[in-house]
Amino acid sequence: MADAGLAAGTPDPFAARRAAFDRYFTRALERRCPAPGALGDAVRYAALSPGKRIRPLLAMASCEGAGGPWRAALPAGAALEAIHAYSLIQDDLPAMDDDDFRRGLPTTHKKFGEATAILASDALVSFAFHELIELRRFVPAARVTDAVRRLAIANGGEELLAGQALDLAAEGRQVDEDEVRAIHLRKTGALFACAMALGGIAAGARRDTVDALDQSGRHLGLAFQIHDDLLNAGASLAQLGKRGGTDAVRGKATYPKVIGTQRSLLRAEAHLDLARAILEEYRLFSPGMARLIHAMAARER
Amino acid sequence: MADAGLAAGTPDPFAARRAAFDRYFTRALERRCPAPGALGDAVRYAALSPGKRIRPLLAMASCEGAGGPWRAALPAGAALEAIHAYSLIQDDLPAMDDDDFRRGLPTTHKKFGEATAILASDALVSFAFHELIELRRFVPAARVTDAVRRLAIANGGEELLAGQALDLAAEGRQVDEDEVRAIHLRKTGALFACAMALGGIAAGARRDTVDALDQSGRHLGLAFQIHDDLLNAGASLAQLGKRGGTDAVRGKATYPKVIGTQRSLLRAEAHLDLARAILEEYRLFSPGMARLIHAMAARER
Repeated sequence: MADAGLAAGTPDPFAARRAAFDRYFTRALERRCPAPGALGDAVRYAALSPGKRIRPLLAMASCEGAGGPWRAALPAGAALEAIHAYSLIQDDLPAMDDDDFRRGLPTTHKKFGEATAILASDALVSFAFHELIELRRFVPAARVTDAVRRLAIANGGEELLAGQALDLAAEGRQVDEDEVRAIHLRKTGALFACAMALGGIAAGARRDTVDALDQSGRHLGLAFQIHDDLLNAGASLAQLGKRGGTDAVRGKATYPKVIGTQRSLLRAEAHLDLARAILEEYRLFSPGMARLIHAMAARER
Repeated sequence: MADAGLAAGTPDPFAARRAAFDRYFTRALERRCPAPGALGDAVRYAALSPGKRIRPLLAMASCEGAGGPWRAALPAGAALEAIHAYSLIQDDLPAMDDDDFRRGLPTTHKKFGEATAILASDALVSFAFHELIELRRFVPAARVTDAVRRLAIANGGEELLAGQALDLAAEGRQVDEDEVRAIHLRKTGALFACAMALGGIAAGARRDTVDALDQSGRHLGLAFQIHDDLLNAGASLAQLGKRGGTDAVRGKATYPKVIGTQRSLLRAEAHLDLARAILEEYRLFSPGMARLIHAMAARER
């Protein structure tokens, strides 16, 4: 059980939801992001390439855990996956990590050129906010504006983008665990937290429930990113779909680098436990969420 | 009357509103875009550098014309100016127009490096959507979601970004007037239309009124961009704050290039007339809007 269904293309317990999501996402991009020519091709290339769809899966499980139908979280899932895809396009740019491969394919700027890649990343951001308005079909408008606010903050200068800036600034420098945690909380935690929160909003959950989901998602994001660090440290291009060992080459701030493999595993486990505890306290721990957390924990075993 | 108050720093009829806007915008960026370190510096550098603030002025005049207090359009104005600033950061990138100067200062990537410039542009987009939620203080949530939808479309793969893609693709190629109009409608018209529409929403205007404002703004955007083409064709760095004559050097698609100076002026006038006619038909033609259109028409005389 190398990845318990969290890698793309393998038979897994999330196949049905992932397929439902991909159908929805494809149609939503057609309708609400009909960019012409190469720009549209680049948008679809970046967004629809095979991926784990972990953020949409989280939003769906969170919605269900909060008592809603998981399909109500499809717009939120599409918004989150679009934000994730845009951040990957930009991560790979020559000015950032300068990567040639992603998900086993040439990166977007390698395939379409840098200008089109940047414009495609922008188009995905606007699509995300446009798509989120579709929540209107399930919840009152005031909840939709709360969802927009949360997505804007998660993708803003204090969270995702601050994480990316800190990450680039930490390259090749000696960092401590606090600093790595700060980066991971922003680069991964913010969007995981947002996925969980938006799932709750789609379910019509109360605000304190949504905040609990947000907190739980932050721990899940940390655990996921620590596992990602461990995978990158030990894996190959064939396993990852992108170059392995690149974090070490670039001197990236990672958990195994600052506290070693064993303690990193303990930290990841602790964060998963905290995420679970919050969900249990608020009675939001659905079977789907349990499966998802189990799969996340099993990734690198 | 070289610019009738549409260039920064000169005494002009819009000084009070521009100052009120700049105060609001500065505070809004502090509150809702508190990015740390160089990222925050780059955000403020790009957003708060001296500019015409034409989109906020349009939103304020539109709000007033639709019977609202112009201050209700400040959040919409801030959102639009942030989107404008992000598009300028990206326009100037090496992968796009590769410009070293903007508004008389080094471009954002020249001053802060390319990675930080890109992240700052992203932060401005998320800020724009976050800021738009502030409309909630003036109108019901359902109108706010409509505003978010309109901004997402204006900044999306069919409008602003498609315009940029078409603009880059047209460089050095023979184009006709239809093609130039298509580019200008997207690159400038979409955001002018959005500014007018959001001003109307801030005033609580009916949907058909908002659509009329949108249409009027599209014509204003075209007129503005034709004048911009003419200015670029004839002006110097000192006059523009950026290099003049660059459109011709790059083989950009411009009105004077495809139909000459005189016919370009006629076109601009025709679009201003259409913009005015729509506003008059819907009784939205406020004194403030009249002054603004007059100033736009007088720019290159």
